[in-house]
Amino acid sequence: MSDTSADIAADLRTRAAALDAADELAKLRERFTLPEGVVYLDGNSLGALPAGVAATTADVVARQWGELLIRSWDESGWWTAPERIGDKIAPLIGAAPGQVVVGDSTSVNLFKALVGGARLAAPGRTKLLVDSATFPTDGYIAQSAARLAGLTVVPVDPAQAAEAIDADTAVVLLNHVDYRSGRLHDLPALTAAARAAGAVAVWDLCHSAGALPVGLDAHEVDLAVGCTYKYLNGGPGAPAYLYIAARHQDAFESPLPGWNGHADPFAMTPAYEAARGATRGRVGTPDILSMLALEAALDAWDGVAVEAVRAKSLALTDFFLECVAAYVPQGLVESVTPAEHERRGSQVSLRTENAREVMGELIARGVIGDFRAPDVLRFGFTPLYVGFADAERAARTLGHIFG
Amino acid sequence: MSDTSADIAADLRTRAAALDAADELAKLRERFTLPEGVVYLDGNSLGALPAGVAATTADVVARQWGELLIRSWDESGWWTAPERIGDKIAPLIGAAPGQVVVGDSTSVNLFKALVGGARLAAPGRTKLLVDSATFPTDGYIAQSAARLAGLTVVPVDPAQAAEAIDADTAVVLLNHVDYRSGRLHDLPALTAAARAAGAVAVWDLCHSAGALPVGLDAHEVDLAVGCTYKYLNGGPGAPAYLYIAARHQDAFESPLPGWNGHADPFAMTPAYEAARGATRGRVGTPDILSMLALEAALDAWDGVAVEAVRAKSLALTDFFLECVAAYVPQGLVESVTPAEHERRGSQVSLRTENAREVMGELIARGVIGDFRAPDVLRFGFTPLYVGFADAERAARTLGHIFG
Repeated sequence: MSDTSADIAADLRTRAAALDAADELAKLRERFTLPEGVVYLDGNSLGALPAGVAATTADVVARQWGELLIRSWDESGWWTAPERIGDKIAPLIGAAPGQVVVGDSTSVNLFKALVGGARLAAPGRTKLLVDSATFPTDGYIAQSAARLAGLTVVPVDPAQAAEAIDADTAVVLLNHVDYRSGRLHDLPALTAAARAAGAVAVWDLCHSAGALPVGLDAHEVDLAVGCTYKYLNGGPGAPAYLYIAARHQDAFESPLPGWNGHADPFAMTPAYEAARGATRGRVGTPDILSMLALEAALDAWDGVAVEAVRAKSLALTDFFLECVAAYVPQGLVESVTPAEHERRGSQVSLRTENAREVMGELIARGVIGDFRAPDVLRFGFTPLYVGFADAERAARTLGHIFG
Repeated sequence: MSDTSADIAADLRTRAAALDAADELAKLRERFTLPEGVVYLDGNSLGALPAGVAATTADVVARQWGELLIRSWDESGWWTAPERIGDKIAPLIGAAPGQVVVGDSTSVNLFKALVGGARLAAPGRTKLLVDSATFPTDGYIAQSAARLAGLTVVPVDPAQAAEAIDADTAVVLLNHVDYRSGRLHDLPALTAAARAAGAVAVWDLCHSAGALPVGLDAHEVDLAVGCTYKYLNGGPGAPAYLYIAARHQDAFESPLPGWNGHADPFAMTPAYEAARGATRGRVGTPDILSMLALEAALDAWDGVAVEAVRAKSLALTDFFLECVAAYVPQGLVESVTPAEHERRGSQVSLRTENAREVMGELIARGVIGDFRAPDVLRFGFTPLYVGFADAERAARTLGHIFG
């Protein structure tokens, strides 16, 4: 390292320390258990472990299941967990209570939203517009939903989606933040375009919920789904959620009308009668261990405003990009994440040669991000537990690998 | 209590003690954590807590998630858990390896089996035959599957199902053991009848798996589903499983083709290509906390033959019925569970007036069964941890309530 580059590094480290010292969210890191010596920039794939989860899980297993047994469905609040936890997620995505229900995987919830959404659309519409750069499962599930609901999938670039939505469009499925590039799509404008055309807007919030304000109610989104194991830190494969806007609930017909979504499930009647509210999005028996771990995990959000998280996220990704520019020789990496704040999620994706090997080397040096085929290094910035010194170290380590 | 009835009680207690002393499975109770002083006859709703689950769950949370973080998808075997645990369940239901995959709820797996089954059937067939006494979710999901797949649901009494299956039948959905009455249906004969008519046989094993031999492969069942939280003791809402017979796997098309069922999930290609084998029954990211709790729970089955479990189950339910006849004044309860062994599952259902209140009183006295509307007291006998003294005490307590 030359004197000049040593000066640059010293400057960036000093600035990182100052930014961390001034960061009002920095103390939230105490709410998580993180391994020593690791910079964890993969919270957009699997969020870190919140401090209260271990004790909750131990209690759920030993006391609620082991001692109370079947009585816990009532006494430990198991039966009502999907709605209760949904209401705990709701403020993070700008939803009033009673519209979010937790359970099943994101893929399964997408299926409910797409088939249920098609049934909300005016009869005769034939198109299901799907984000052409979507996370794959959305596209696969959309194809299946379209086949079963008699629609045709039309891939669409979200940047051009507003013009593509027409009077023949039943449903539009878009990702709020692109999983690969980190591009943030214009949810308010695209939802408004769908509404203007009479189409149902379904948003996948996997890469935005918990990282930035979503504003589902404010922007009159129709249906939305998301996972809880990224920025919401619910744990590996934690149950996903489904948002059904209040105005659609009475008409929403799930293609997966399991007994948990019945108006009177323990009457065990042969005919299905959907429950009122978001409950009709439930299917089978909820996965209690994972669900109550998620509930405990969400305590990490107590008193945290998503707007503050967003401000820190942008500052972190700005600073990381600046450090990368300083540490990595020009031309070796290229950011595919938009520079404009209004088009950036909470990650930075760098395109490079040999990305798989580079990420392996980063992980070996204690900087955990992830690789997305064919050539992307993906770094997720989770403001609840990632700081500016982490961003500096990650960029510096990347520079060393290229040096 | 008169001298005569005191003699009868003494005799039954002596016999119970002798039966427990001679029971080779009695020592398996040590593999479970059960509350003191409770007779637990609701393992057919929520199985008891196996001893190893708490330690496994604590490790999954603290080390696998908290320390290893994203690396656990490979290093802790998370990614391959659905097939690995499926293969652990397989011998309990008579399936060779590679045909059972764990994940999602029973209701969701039913949907896969019914729509996927309809696609396996010859084109032009229009009927979906469904057990008329089915657990409700099966009927609800069948209606939805039929609507989407262009079939018509035809309710059928399983006792008459063999005659009802005809050349117009695409799929037959039956419960192996009726959840309310405990009646065991003739899986071999009904599956053969479906095969003879060219229909696809789908079995719901929720109330038989882990209680009696199922013999899926031997009887050439096509598709099957089951939960894991009853006789398999996987925990509240533990993931369910889907069995896809090897001969159907290449043609099986899931209506829920999530990215986990893709042949090359991390290639993240826009086009869906189903994985080989039971893996194509996977949908979204597996629910790891619940799934690995289930895996640990299944250790309770190490070295246990389902045939021995079945023999003890029948002896337990016989003895319970004998005790009920001795302790409960005649005419106050009526068993709706078949007396013949070949038609009995692993529960005894007693019809009585005020069944809800009677069950509440039993639970208050430490005998936990459950109530099924409108008039059934349901007692499940789980041979891994229920003994003959439990059966005697349960019947005696019931007698006291009526006395």
